[in-house]
Amino acid sequence: MGTFNPRVETLDPPPIPTVQAWAASYDGAQGPMIDLSQAVPGYPPHPDLLSWLAEAAGSRRYTGYGAIEGEPVLRQSLADHMTGLYGAPVEAANIHITSGANQAFMCMAMAVSGEGDAIALTRPFYFNQQTTLAMLGIRQVLVDCEPDNGFLPDIASVRQAVESGIKALALVSPNNPTGAVYPAGLLDEIFEICRSARVWLFVDETYRDFLPDGHVPHGLLSKSGWQDHLALIYSFSKSHCIPGHRLGAITASQAFVAQVAKIMDNLQICAPRAPQAAVARGLAELGEWRRQNRLEIATRVEAMRKAMAANPDWQIAAIGAYFAYVRHPFAEIASEKVAEQLALRAGILCLPGVYFGEGQERYLRFAFANADARTIAELKSRLAEFRIA
Amino acid sequence: MGTFNPRVETLDPPPIPTVQAWAASYDGAQGPMIDLSQAVPGYPPHPDLLSWLAEAAGSRRYTGYGAIEGEPVLRQSLADHMTGLYGAPVEAANIHITSGANQAFMCMAMAVSGEGDAIALTRPFYFNQQTTLAMLGIRQVLVDCEPDNGFLPDIASVRQAVESGIKALALVSPNNPTGAVYPAGLLDEIFEICRSARVWLFVDETYRDFLPDGHVPHGLLSKSGWQDHLALIYSFSKSHCIPGHRLGAITASQAFVAQVAKIMDNLQICAPRAPQAAVARGLAELGEWRRQNRLEIATRVEAMRKAMAANPDWQIAAIGAYFAYVRHPFAEIASEKVAEQLALRAGILCLPGVYFGEGQERYLRFAFANADARTIAELKSRLAEFRIA
Repeated sequence: MGTFNPRVETLDPPPIPTVQAWAASYDGAQGPMIDLSQAVPGYPPHPDLLSWLAEAAGSRRYTGYGAIEGEPVLRQSLADHMTGLYGAPVEAANIHITSGANQAFMCMAMAVSGEGDAIALTRPFYFNQQTTLAMLGIRQVLVDCEPDNGFLPDIASVRQAVESGIKALALVSPNNPTGAVYPAGLLDEIFEICRSARVWLFVDETYRDFLPDGHVPHGLLSKSGWQDHLALIYSFSKSHCIPGHRLGAITASQAFVAQVAKIMDNLQICAPRAPQAAVARGLAELGEWRRQNRLEIATRVEAMRKAMAANPDWQIAAIGAYFAYVRHPFAEIASEKVAEQLALRAGILCLPGVYFGEGQERYLRFAFANADARTIAELKSRLAEFRIA
Repeated sequence: MGTFNPRVETLDPPPIPTVQAWAASYDGAQGPMIDLSQAVPGYPPHPDLLSWLAEAAGSRRYTGYGAIEGEPVLRQSLADHMTGLYGAPVEAANIHITSGANQAFMCMAMAVSGEGDAIALTRPFYFNQQTTLAMLGIRQVLVDCEPDNGFLPDIASVRQAVESGIKALALVSPNNPTGAVYPAGLLDEIFEICRSARVWLFVDETYRDFLPDGHVPHGLLSKSGWQDHLALIYSFSKSHCIPGHRLGAITASQAFVAQVAKIMDNLQICAPRAPQAAVARGLAELGEWRRQNRLEIATRVEAMRKAMAANPDWQIAAIGAYFAYVRHPFAEIASEKVAEQLALRAGILCLPGVYFGEGQERYLRFAFANADARTIAELKSRLAEFRIA
């Protein structure tokens, strides 16, 4: 038999299908499964967006190949949106559209590094970023984010990682899995450390749309020369509720975009075109709807806090935007076992801490934003009655 | 400034946009540009397919994440289609849906190799396969396909390459760029060479739908144990005229599909879902329409032969399915210069041989299937009048 690439062969199977398989074994005794595993908004896309998606997909206009970097209308629309959000000029030429945020990360990792190079992630990390580096043979340096520091990266650890000879430091804020929102001042400080060491700072902002109204995530795009050291990741999946249409984006210098275009040409020529046209309209016209969703998700944060407060053995270690990182009460039991038992006996689907790195066995990730407040409230009784066999 | 990955930085910019830029400088003196550069069917998708695309894209059913390996309905539909075409059982579990054939190749290359390993391509090669290997740090071994052998791979060279320690041999049939259709017996012989050496054989069959009615491309899927040494690439872009929707597929063993799923999870989680649902219907219901397109493209082959026969300085070195590989008359002039001048002075857009590897300077690739027979006939006078400045 032909042989496989050990960098891929040694990877565990994708985590989400593993967890979803537990759901199939749940007997329904506690009521319908509460699925807080994969981050998927628990409300539908705006009906107008569905119409625009249909209109574009049914049009001959988008059946041919498109520009590698993305549809000009979406690049401009996102650039305008970011200019408004950050109060700093972002141009269409700074945007590269990708087929989701995972693809954006992979392109960015490849743009700056290959086998033998190193990229730093935080620990806990978003598992697909870790496996992406592993399969590319890119060495990983981990910056620990401790619970007593609100799961924020420690500056001394950042400095040590950055000065160890990495090509990039990759952060996620609001964080996946912890939900921690990195303060603008912290991001600023980390950027300067990266700049001094001529290291790229990658910030994955997939969940930035769920920050409170008026919250500007950071001021990095106002820094002169940001282009030489910064690249941002965005996803249309969560904010527009269309992960199945696979759209994300990179914001970076034109030089960076040119490197990504070479990778994307090989990787898929261009992101699917029709949804790009539809989302460009959504970005421009559905701002109020997105605001209402932010408010809705804020009520879910409150529902989550309330449900957990009623079970003091369970602690919210961090919460924000989309995720809660929850400390479970079973010190001696592996997180994967706890999560599996939660699925089978309590009808609660979440991800075990072990998926996010070593030292995370006491934690579970709840993608609480998937469920409405009434459903989240049910966690209270289900957790209260929960025992591990 | 942060630094870039030299494996990416040293790649040339993507070739298609470079060529398309020439078109913008054409003054129209010879009539509308005849664009034979990128392989894009010159007829629209079936109107029913457009309706199905719209219906699926506008549905809430496909807004969420889907199965990494692809929509079950499309995997089954393609498996059934292949079972019919090859007269050998292919199961849904053997299919992995990707976002186009380039992505399929990249996943397959990564599944079996990483930096320091080698994969063999033919020369001339399809440029994106070459750049994909280069950016991944995968070493390339080239099997020459000589004009006096109809641009088919020479068996002795294949044997030498396979025995040199490669992980896979990647072929394209019907070939891009030459159009050469590899005989079933040749593919059989090459498969056995690969099997003896425990090397994977990859066959990219993007253009197989344009073979004559009743032509079975090969018998490889009837060989016992094919799963241990064979993986096939397919594209829905050409046969269904929807490259902008980005859909392709891998056919391989379940073990191979499992490796690809790990890569795809990192690379984009899943291919866009709505077009998968639409194409599954297209595959099942539009067979007669595809047959008519095959017949139409056969008339374009004849038109191409006729136009070139009238210009004996220009020779069709190979032709088939979708492409003609044309020997131009300018022995002393680089193919890129010839192609650029053809665009600027004759209004004919094609790709220079140099994009397909060393030793290809005398050739140009004409994606003749893009244009109807009447348009192709115009090549006759445009080439007759063509002079290089």
